[in-house]
Amino acid sequence: MTTLAFQDLYPDELGHCYGCGKNNDHGLQIKSFWEGKETVAHFEPRPEHTALPGYVYGGLIASLIDCHGTGSAAAAAYKANGRDMGSEPALRFVTANLNVDFLAPTPMGETLELRGKIKEIKEKKVIVEITVFAKGKACAKGSIVCVKMPASMMPS
Amino acid sequence: MTTLAFQDLYPDELGHCYGCGKNNDHGLQIKSFWEGKETVAHFEPRPEHTALPGYVYGGLIASLIDCHGTGSAAAAAYKANGRDMGSEPALRFVTANLNVDFLAPTPMGETLELRGKIKEIKEKKVIVEITVFAKGKACAKGSIVCVKMPASMMPS
Repeated sequence: MTTLAFQDLYPDELGHCYGCGKNNDHGLQIKSFWEGKETVAHFEPRPEHTALPGYVYGGLIASLIDCHGTGSAAAAAYKANGRDMGSEPALRFVTANLNVDFLAPTPMGETLELRGKIKEIKEKKVIVEITVFAKGKACAKGSIVCVKMPASMMPS
Repeated sequence: MTTLAFQDLYPDELGHCYGCGKNNDHGLQIKSFWEGKETVAHFEPRPEHTALPGYVYGGLIASLIDCHGTGSAAAAAYKANGRDMGSEPALRFVTANLNVDFLAPTPMGETLELRGKIKEIKEKKVIVEITVFAKGKACAKGSIVCVKMPASMMPS
């Protein structure tokens, strides 16, 4: 049995995100999973995702934290409601605030690991803290405040 | 006479960034300019830069703020030193902290305008506040703490 990623369980109409949509062929297609109480995603930066030569571009790191964060928020909300992820109606979160500390230059050529911890969970708001590791070293730390997607944003 | 963007005045070896490098064919190639005391950049999201259908992906917005911010920091540092941007030795900044408030969903199909204000400038640290507008409406607001690039990151 293969475990599906959080993002693979988003409904099709919510699967177009550049960062994590399974239906975005040009995008990053980030995949997040539970690992105990933490959420985990891995991503290998492409050669073009460089900042200065040899280092990963900060915007990519912020993007990974953003999509791993909203995915983790959705997964945590399903869990808190005792529901299977992917069941209807969809619980989907968007970002209200994203705060990233860049702790050390992130080397290219490594698979990055993102580990998320759910710090707060309310019906309409979830806060996730995410650390980005390269070769076991913490290179960035992010905090993301996710809010339930407004009904006005839902594709009709 | 054409005014060159901040990023076009980075030395070639520092022009590979995915967000703003003139030498990155796959990247976003953000271009920033002075407009009075503010810095300005415009960017038209590509069709794949979607979040939910109809809205721009937050990671792109964070990326634009990041690169417009470090570019603005460099330009402000040259100005504070009474130097022409592009003169040697290069002054280049990297991001220590990036904090973005997403104020409203950002519509696709619009050219985004980023306006930066230099809030603090010291020799090794510059803080820039940036607002992202779509059709004149503020959709996101970011604060970025930029620090002078460590010598260890300079390409040899």
